[in-house]
Amino acid sequence: MNVSQERLREDIEATAEFGRIESEEGRGRTVLTGTEANREARDLFVSRLEDADLEVRVDRVGNIVGRWTPESADADAAPVAAGSHLDSVPEGGIFDGPLGTYAALESVRAMQEAGTELARPVEVVCFTEEEGQRFAGGMLGSSVSAGALPVEDALALTDDEGTTLESALASIGYDGEGVVDASAWDSWLELHIEQGTRLEDAGIPVGVVTDVTGIFHCDVEVIGEANHAGTTPMPERTDAMAAASELVLDVESEAREIVETESESAVGTVGKLNVSPNAPNVIAGKVDLTVDIRDVEAASIDRITDRVKETLERLEAERGVETTFEVDLDVAPTPLAERCQEAIHAGAGDFDLESTDLISGAAHDTMHVADATDAAMLFSPSEDGISHNPREWTDWDDCADATRALAGGIRRLANE
Amino acid sequence: MNVSQERLREDIEATAEFGRIESEEGRGRTVLTGTEANREARDLFVSRLEDADLEVRVDRVGNIVGRWTPESADADAAPVAAGSHLDSVPEGGIFDGPLGTYAALESVRAMQEAGTELARPVEVVCFTEEEGQRFAGGMLGSSVSAGALPVEDALALTDDEGTTLESALASIGYDGEGVVDASAWDSWLELHIEQGTRLEDAGIPVGVVTDVTGIFHCDVEVIGEANHAGTTPMPERTDAMAAASELVLDVESEAREIVETESESAVGTVGKLNVSPNAPNVIAGKVDLTVDIRDVEAASIDRITDRVKETLERLEAERGVETTFEVDLDVAPTPLAERCQEAIHAGAGDFDLESTDLISGAAHDTMHVADATDAAMLFSPSEDGISHNPREWTDWDDCADATRALAGGIRRLANE
Repeated sequence: MNVSQERLREDIEATAEFGRIESEEGRGRTVLTGTEANREARDLFVSRLEDADLEVRVDRVGNIVGRWTPESADADAAPVAAGSHLDSVPEGGIFDGPLGTYAALESVRAMQEAGTELARPVEVVCFTEEEGQRFAGGMLGSSVSAGALPVEDALALTDDEGTTLESALASIGYDGEGVVDASAWDSWLELHIEQGTRLEDAGIPVGVVTDVTGIFHCDVEVIGEANHAGTTPMPERTDAMAAASELVLDVESEAREIVETESESAVGTVGKLNVSPNAPNVIAGKVDLTVDIRDVEAASIDRITDRVKETLERLEAERGVETTFEVDLDVAPTPLAERCQEAIHAGAGDFDLESTDLISGAAHDTMHVADATDAAMLFSPSEDGISHNPREWTDWDDCADATRALAGGIRRLANE
Repeated sequence: MNVSQERLREDIEATAEFGRIESEEGRGRTVLTGTEANREARDLFVSRLEDADLEVRVDRVGNIVGRWTPESADADAAPVAAGSHLDSVPEGGIFDGPLGTYAALESVRAMQEAGTELARPVEVVCFTEEEGQRFAGGMLGSSVSAGALPVEDALALTDDEGTTLESALASIGYDGEGVVDASAWDSWLELHIEQGTRLEDAGIPVGVVTDVTGIFHCDVEVIGEANHAGTTPMPERTDAMAAASELVLDVESEAREIVETESESAVGTVGKLNVSPNAPNVIAGKVDLTVDIRDVEAASIDRITDRVKETLERLEAERGVETTFEVDLDVAPTPLAERCQEAIHAGAGDFDLESTDLISGAAHDTMHVADATDAAMLFSPSEDGISHNPREWTDWDDCADATRALAGGIRRLANE
């Protein structure tokens, strides 16, 4: 079979038009769930699925599935599924999500054209709200599909303005029927950009993910006392911004220490932080922030989490602030299915492509799907490891090679 | 003459309806320049000026003046002016600004009723955008009146959305004619809440300000590299949020050190800080913040400013961030006019009110007016020193007493 780099590139570039951002650094996009840009990206995907004669369904949380049942297949056999997501972070890149979504579709198109015989149907999937930018902590569609999150709870989630996921999906016409059930799949594969530099450094086009990092998000409030920045003497202040700054630095320092002593892959980040009332001449009365903690070692996550709690206690004692701590996301490290990893390695080999094992430092929909069925992921190289940024880039040759490995993997799993 | 506490309270409470905020902490208001709430507050003020038969004019930057020319006065004599502002910080209190504005009007009403004879006209003034929340660094109307800022430059200032002051004022109908000229005034008095605890601690109702603190605002950008919080190893990060946190803490620590060793009144604050892209799973690519530095000693301001610059250099060297530093506001400490201070002390004495000297840690319109004519300020006690917060409170008895001292001061200056 022949994967078409040209067709895949056209899909990704067309998707990149929606929520398009031009910056000095490159071409990016902002596609939050339930926005006009998200509707446009979904509409294009549905039309491309239909162009390939796939049978399209949309579930209650907006997950989109296109099903191909080859003449050779048992229509009742559990399908092999593959895909990714179409939403993005604010000012994100054009590959994170769309590559895996359209690579799954391109795999099907290539097999259709080649007359490839499969024993099982193939389903091409777009999951809703993988990035967790508007509703909850991310991987929303897949967590519903895998049974980790009840559909009614998902639909009732609200964004910062109080809009529910249900009404946001209805507003763009993606409030469908039923729930896509990941446990009904024989297996699942997701192609994604690496968002790191290991493949680029090694000069290898295909990475097979053995484990997905655990991820822990906690929302922290630091409550001080808003007061006049000019008339409140230094010793009489309860400055939420200064207190929060200590927390930011403690998270960084604990993660750095673990990296040096215990686990190189541990990371801790404060990337979202809002100050209230946020005026130059008012001492901050409140700071809200989210701490993102990850590793393939559960012990690292626990250690950084403990440090956050210790720092909050210390800040309460030393600075007189009040603090709150709420767990927003807590997903354990996930080892992926051996048979799916082997299918990808072998699929890459079918096209004479070198492949290597690595871990995923990012959370992905595959984490949830892996709880419901056999699942694995493959990565393609990210230039300079940059992601969630308009500078995110993967060479079109690399996109096509990884798609070949994906198609090879699907072909093998669908005939097992 | 009889200052009416009831009438003054009614004015302030009516003003507090506009942009009203109810919080657990108390009743506050958000009145940014050129908003609907600002229009309402201005309209009420104009109608109250007209009710008292004052001749109202509005200048090009929206400064409002009500002029009273008693029959006894030389209409061509330089007037005594008094007033304050009606805008607020976001979620600010109900006294900061409105007390001084309406106390000036109440002084006139009390003198009118008493048939007080004055040699000079009196002007009651509301300056535009004292708080600097929407346009530039604050004290905007007074800086134009005092000749420190050309009117065309002021009108061209833009808010974060690119709206000019000129169009914001036009949208609420406060784009008037000419410019109120502070140098045409014989003298100026401003009553304001203390926003500190010295009067409350001393149990004295009237504070006479000898010096207004110098104030320095610099806008700082810390530019790192936005990248995926899960896949970017700790050693490979350029985290703008962590870098900015060091700056926040360095500003605090330098100010604390000066307080302990050189000048108790020195303060340094980061109250406004915005993170970009501000997502939990993206390392901050950029942080914008404003550093607010004040003291009556110019040396303290220089020392904290130097520390900011040193820290930025260190962060560039140690963390690989890029930084920018832009001075947004730089007003030297201002000693106030002896004759105006004496008029307030004597005016307080006319009503058997005790008064004391203090300094102002906050910037006020009087800082600019003092460059153009003889000027002074008086303070009334702030409960717990809280300000720029819905908890801001001054007892109505204290509001009335300070208004008596103001009226007494105006009466004396207008007959000198």
